[in-house]
Amino acid sequence: MIIRNVNELKNTDRSVSDAQWTSVRMLLADDQMGFSFHITYIQAGSEHTFHYKNHFESVWCVSGKGSIEDLETGEVHEIKPGVMYALDKHDKHTVRCEEELVLACCFNPPVTGKEVHREDGSYAAPDEAA
Amino acid sequence: MIIRNVNELKNTDRSVSDAQWTSVRMLLADDQMGFSFHITYIQAGSEHTFHYKNHFESVWCVSGKGSIEDLETGEVHEIKPGVMYALDKHDKHTVRCEEELVLACCFNPPVTGKEVHREDGSYAAPDEAA
Repeated sequence: MIIRNVNELKNTDRSVSDAQWTSVRMLLADDQMGFSFHITYIQAGSEHTFHYKNHFESVWCVSGKGSIEDLETGEVHEIKPGVMYALDKHDKHTVRCEEELVLACCFNPPVTGKEVHREDGSYAAPDEAA
Repeated sequence: MIIRNVNELKNTDRSVSDAQWTSVRMLLADDQMGFSFHITYIQAGSEHTFHYKNHFESVWCVSGKGSIEDLETGEVHEIKPGVMYALDKHDKHTVRCEEELVLACCFNPPVTGKEVHREDGSYAAPDEAA
């Protein structure tokens, strides 16, 4: 049994930050659960475009306010507490944040923690060099 | 892209209740994400013993107060907002709830939604009759 507290991991190497977001990796590939689980904080006023070509991701909003735009269809959906979006088609998307978002995120395949976002907004597949 | 709101699913067939808990299935096996994702509500004052022999489960506490006992070792861990437990060894466990717990749960393999808890606290494996 693994026990971890997001508040205790915020200042450790399990917390990864980029421009205007921080992601605390609660579970990674080496935990061998078959998925990874992250608590991600997105700063108010920021905008992020991602395209996880090699991963399925679900994101459930714990708190905050924003929106997600499906860049394929142009549809915009509100993000607020209780709302989940799931990128079942590896959907390229833009997240816009009005009030700091706290998000519970699952990735399959699990993120190793060593990925970087590439220019196209994706992470490398597990068997591919980053 | 799938968009769902836990508050809108509470009174639908995606919400499953048993004695003193309710689980809203945000993602199930047929969503083909490779995991399932549930928001689970556990009533204050209740106690639950589970043993997911065929699944890995992670549980992150959104709100509430309780504890988890590892029935193999006897260790007891506090459950409070921000704490995650992950049953990486299919750990048999008892959850005790002091104040209503709201929990974000991931299962691998994904739950189909048709499982019932068996007498031993487990769910059937996907290829096994329930």
